[in-house]
Amino acid sequence: MALAHDPLFITSDKSPIDITSTPPPSSMMILTQDELKRIAAYKAVDFVKSGMVLGLGTGSTAKHAVDRIGELLRRGELENIVGIPTSKKTQEQALSLGIPLSDLDSHPVIDLSIDGADEVDPRLNLVKGRGGSLLREKMIEGASKKFVVIVDESKMVKHIGGSKLALPVEVVPFCWEFTAERLRGVMEGYGGCEAKLRFGENGRAFVTDNGNYIVDMYLEKDMGDLRVVSDEILRLPGVVEHGMFLDMASTVIIAGELGVKIKNKYSSCC
Amino acid sequence: MALAHDPLFITSDKSPIDITSTPPPSSMMILTQDELKRIAAYKAVDFVKSGMVLGLGTGSTAKHAVDRIGELLRRGELENIVGIPTSKKTQEQALSLGIPLSDLDSHPVIDLSIDGADEVDPRLNLVKGRGGSLLREKMIEGASKKFVVIVDESKMVKHIGGSKLALPVEVVPFCWEFTAERLRGVMEGYGGCEAKLRFGENGRAFVTDNGNYIVDMYLEKDMGDLRVVSDEILRLPGVVEHGMFLDMASTVIIAGELGVKIKNKYSSCC
Repeated sequence: MALAHDPLFITSDKSPIDITSTPPPSSMMILTQDELKRIAAYKAVDFVKSGMVLGLGTGSTAKHAVDRIGELLRRGELENIVGIPTSKKTQEQALSLGIPLSDLDSHPVIDLSIDGADEVDPRLNLVKGRGGSLLREKMIEGASKKFVVIVDESKMVKHIGGSKLALPVEVVPFCWEFTAERLRGVMEGYGGCEAKLRFGENGRAFVTDNGNYIVDMYLEKDMGDLRVVSDEILRLPGVVEHGMFLDMASTVIIAGELGVKIKNKYSSCC
Repeated sequence: MALAHDPLFITSDKSPIDITSTPPPSSMMILTQDELKRIAAYKAVDFVKSGMVLGLGTGSTAKHAVDRIGELLRRGELENIVGIPTSKKTQEQALSLGIPLSDLDSHPVIDLSIDGADEVDPRLNLVKGRGGSLLREKMIEGASKKFVVIVDESKMVKHIGGSKLALPVEVVPFCWEFTAERLRGVMEGYGGCEAKLRFGENGRAFVTDNGNYIVDMYLEKDMGDLRVVSDEILRLPGVVEHGMFLDMASTVIIAGELGVKIKNKYSSCC
């Protein structure tokens, strides 16, 4: 419904995961990263139907999806939507667009969530949280029947941590240095990491919507079995949540210069 | 050093865990629960030596131990102690007693922690946190070379949850009802539970030192493998920490009408 006038085309690759594909067109225009994000976001909004409860993601890519939902509501092409925002920032954006909002307490089952990601590995495991909203995102997206992830192709990695950018961990402020040191200790068993407190634009420790800090881990190597690493991190008192979203994405939409790929997780997969 | 004038005697039982014991005396006085707590606390302070970094527990039993440490410092029988308080309340108590304080960031390795517990099972697994300080207690006591637990005999249970009192879970305030419902869902696999928000004396939700809420779980049955249950609870986004302290206590001092028992965990045990 949404993309008739967008520079959208879909390509395929040799991934073992199901891909919807059409051949690329014979001529192409060069797109900015933000345009790619918008293309992926608009494609994701194709999954939205009137009457749905929607998880609304946070970040520069998800912002496009929320804008698009607001536009379709205003044009009457969508009706009776309830949005569940994953951050205060998204809540403000959705309110400004007139999207009716609720929360997980009132709507513990969500039909569809749409959100960006910082990394996507070949099994559709994600890193999220560079925007700082990992905890609310994980609560909401984990309660969703379908979770559509929207990224530009720069986010695809061979393994989690492969971008050499941060894997965020939300920690309580109390003795965060001790917790960061324990994180380093745990990660020694998985190739090692640097672990640094995240700072905000005001030069002070970045504070999440839940009043916590973020310790950003920079991984040295492929960690191997991510579920084992996840449990070890979560066992540390002081850790509230981490940014690995394992086995949660049902679909990943990847916008690149050569078109849009859609990867679906087989229900029997993994 | 501390107990020459206390009504202290030590008994044994048939537990498989090592017990230091002496026979009970032929005549006894009836002791209140608070006196029993004090006896256990004073016995624990026998383990304290000058120069130690000490984790200072929270609650009605631990309070006696902190008082005793303050008294011994004042009398010059202990010197050069550094205390690491497990709550703001204990911090205030320790400051009022003149106990020098620090934190985990400065002292990431603690020589000895002394704290109460709400339940102790036969393998010395604990429930803690009915006082609301479970997270800081777990951080500090988990960083301790030796962790001495002090209880009156009413705290001994056949299995965790056996007292039918609360197993506390610290959760982020955001959509806590959703998290409580997910906790109920997880616990269905382990005999079921009720899960209720804890309220403070002011009639509002109780707020921890970390700005979080407590959901108290009331268990129906023995949960079986506690490590498995622990990991399942910690995997729920929204859960910050739970009150099961598994395989952490090195010694449990139990004060009862028939005397004091000391149970030590074998290093080869469990």
